[in-house]
Amino acid sequence: MNIDAQALALLAGELLEEARARRPLVQNITNFVSMDIAANALLALGASPAMIHAPEETDEFITIADALVINVGTLSAPSAISMDRAASAARMHGKPWLLDPVAAGLLTFRDEAIRKLLRHRPTIIRGNASEIMAVARIAGLTQDAATPHGVDNRHQASEAEALAVKLARHCFCAVVATGAVDVVTDGKSVVRLGNGSPLAPRVTALGCSMSSVMAAYMSLAEPFDAALAATILYGVTGDIAGETARGPASFRTAFLDTLFSIRASDLASRIKVI
Amino acid sequence: MNIDAQALALLAGELLEEARARRPLVQNITNFVSMDIAANALLALGASPAMIHAPEETDEFITIADALVINVGTLSAPSAISMDRAASAARMHGKPWLLDPVAAGLLTFRDEAIRKLLRHRPTIIRGNASEIMAVARIAGLTQDAATPHGVDNRHQASEAEALAVKLARHCFCAVVATGAVDVVTDGKSVVRLGNGSPLAPRVTALGCSMSSVMAAYMSLAEPFDAALAATILYGVTGDIAGETARGPASFRTAFLDTLFSIRASDLASRIKVI
Amino acid sequence: MNIDAQALALLAGELLEEARARRPLVQNITNFVSMDIAANALLALGASPAMIHAPEETDEFITIADALVINVGTLSAPSAISMDRAASAARMHGKPWLLDPVAAGLLTFRDEAIRKLLRHRPTIIRGNASEIMAVARIAGLTQDAATPHGVDNRHQASEAEALAVKLARHCFCAVVATGAVDVVTDGKSVVRLGNGSPLAPRVTALGCSMSSVMAAYMSLAEPFDAALAATILYGVTGDIAGETARGPASFRTAFLDTLFSIRASDLASRIKVI
Repeated sequence: MNIDAQALALLAGELLEEARARRPLVQNITNFVSMDIAANALLALGASPAMIHAPEETDEFITIADALVINVGTLSAPSAISMDRAASAARMHGKPWLLDPVAAGLLTFRDEAIRKLLRHRPTIIRGNASEIMAVARIAGLTQDAATPHGVDNRHQASEAEALAVKLARHCFCAVVATGAVDVVTDGKSVVRLGNGSPLAPRVTALGCSMSSVMAAYMSLAEPFDAALAATILYGVTGDIAGETARGPASFRTAFLDTLFSIRASDLASRIKVI
Repeated sequence: MNIDAQALALLAGELLEEARARRPLVQNITNFVSMDIAANALLALGASPAMIHAPEETDEFITIADALVINVGTLSAPSAISMDRAASAARMHGKPWLLDPVAAGLLTFRDEAIRKLLRHRPTIIRGNASEIMAVARIAGLTQDAATPHGVDNRHQASEAEALAVKLARHCFCAVVATGAVDVVTDGKSVVRLGNGSPLAPRVTALGCSMSSVMAAYMSLAEPFDAALAATILYGVTGDIAGETARGPASFRTAFLDTLFSIRASDLASRIKVI
Repeated sequence: MNIDAQALALLAGELLEEARARRPLVQNITNFVSMDIAANALLALGASPAMIHAPEETDEFITIADALVINVGTLSAPSAISMDRAASAARMHGKPWLLDPVAAGLLTFRDEAIRKLLRHRPTIIRGNASEIMAVARIAGLTQDAATPHGVDNRHQASEAEALAVKLARHCFCAVVATGAVDVVTDGKSVVRLGNGSPLAPRVTALGCSMSSVMAAYMSLAEPFDAALAATILYGVTGDIAGETARGPASFRTAFLDTLFSIRASDLASRIKVI
């Protein structure tokens, strides 16, 4: 393990402890599938979730929230309005916000909503490799028509890496493309991380919950550092949970239990930088 | 165990392996209670869930989906529109679709929505015995006013059997009425299956998740075969999960873990045809 | 342990057994985060959940339901209409209804919805200490501007006690303020209960599910008795679940399993009246 890995693990350990101490309040405008696991992941970490998504409430809530996640998983016309208003309000009040572009690249209505959200300058964009490639296409950075298959990831992060870097430069944000290898970039540096379990993609909305945890970190650190630290946390937590799981459901339980009990030293001893 | 049981187990085993190999993409317009467990059941099986339910997206998504589930559990005026459009689009594009008539027979608005959906000819109708009896009444096949009690099943499958057969003939579809004994029919043959755990009705939306798995199978086989294979899979998975569970929540975990690891040989050795 | 504690445990044991025998049907107009755990808690107890929340269905369903819960967690303009109509219909049909004022005191739209709901005279109001203090403020019983932090509880029940009593008198209802110590009052008597686990607030919507169970009890007993019995049940269940949990997710599993298997004698041997 080289020195960079240990510096990264140190960063991840510090943010883990800071999140537990400061309990950031994360506003989630998220899909109906992920609400339970996203809220439980934030609570297990020690942060404070709020699932506030009505247009009548989003603007007001952002003034007291520390960070905002916008996840388009179960998009609808009313929620698209809430998302647009919330992202705009977040920017106006200087609150960081994260875009989770679930199922980008598949549907006209959704891609148009994502295109509009990009104008409000997300602090971080986090999706699986297929989604990040699709967002790059929506942003006009490539003509390649990738072939997503539903909401599942069908690409290696290595395929998404060049577009992730382009997207980060274009949006002045950090970008995370997850997969068997996770790629994290701010448009200048690229870090590849190799932790995680093959059971993770068998648990619905686990990636969505990672976005919520990343948003908690985003309120405590620079975007690139927050993106790195949350990716490391999720990867190592997946490693540990995978060691005792008998299938996807016991993996989910072990994952959330581990988020609650994991220590900085676990991150240091298990981090895999590739 | 007679030869028929082994032929059925063989069918169920083949579809299990084919679903894992081909990973069908199942579009779910489902209730908010079942989203998590339905998506997780499909992922545990190896299929690919998508919870796409906005009217702006349902029609477009059906063109790439392999099958559709429509579950009226938490029906609303907007979702009734989505359901109608999606069922119509599924039929137009030749995609199989399954109707899960949660709480049929209790509420005017819901029964009217179900009546309209029946016009789009579902490929399979799956509900508990009380719900199947209510759908038969909605379809005008009986005058009997059964007395459902909320969304719980209050009838034996044997009480629903004659109406299930009538309904299958009337709709040219397969019908599954679940309970302690499950009845599966295409209007000609009737198969009664006796696997499952008494803990299963103590887990919310487990039946809804069965509908989603059945829809995955429906994209790979004829309706009656898909209905049989998914019913056998759920019954035997329930048997296995029930052996280690300490209550409904650990049963749910064991159930999803078992869906992930169950083998064709488990189906063959445990199937109970009645 | 004094005689009062044993009288309370006896009451709680009787209601536990009665709920299992009579299986009350509880209508839930609740937030999207809590639907899964609220339905599963009711099923684990032996009661019958129905998540019916569309304005087209709420009025009709209340006529067959035994009790109603209104939880404003993920409030929206349409759901505010449903809640208002359902509370009004519940009162008209003489069905008890419980108000769970999630995140009261934070948002204008929500506080206004709560103010309107109070006019329909809830049978019980159950929230965490911060929420109960906020509802007292919404009802005009204090000018103190408490400082809630998102949806988490930031107050001790002892801080909420005087306002809980005022609120119960003002609304002619029972009030439960939960926290490390739970306070239950009908405006005359006050009971403080000390059971429960520090893991409980780390599980999203566990309090919401307590409201649903309390509503089941409310259909079987006087409001104050139902409030006491459900608070005791949840506290002791938390004690037992906390003994084997390795973190919040295994606590959630153990909690629901324990709701299924807990006995009146467990309540008697573990109740802590403070």
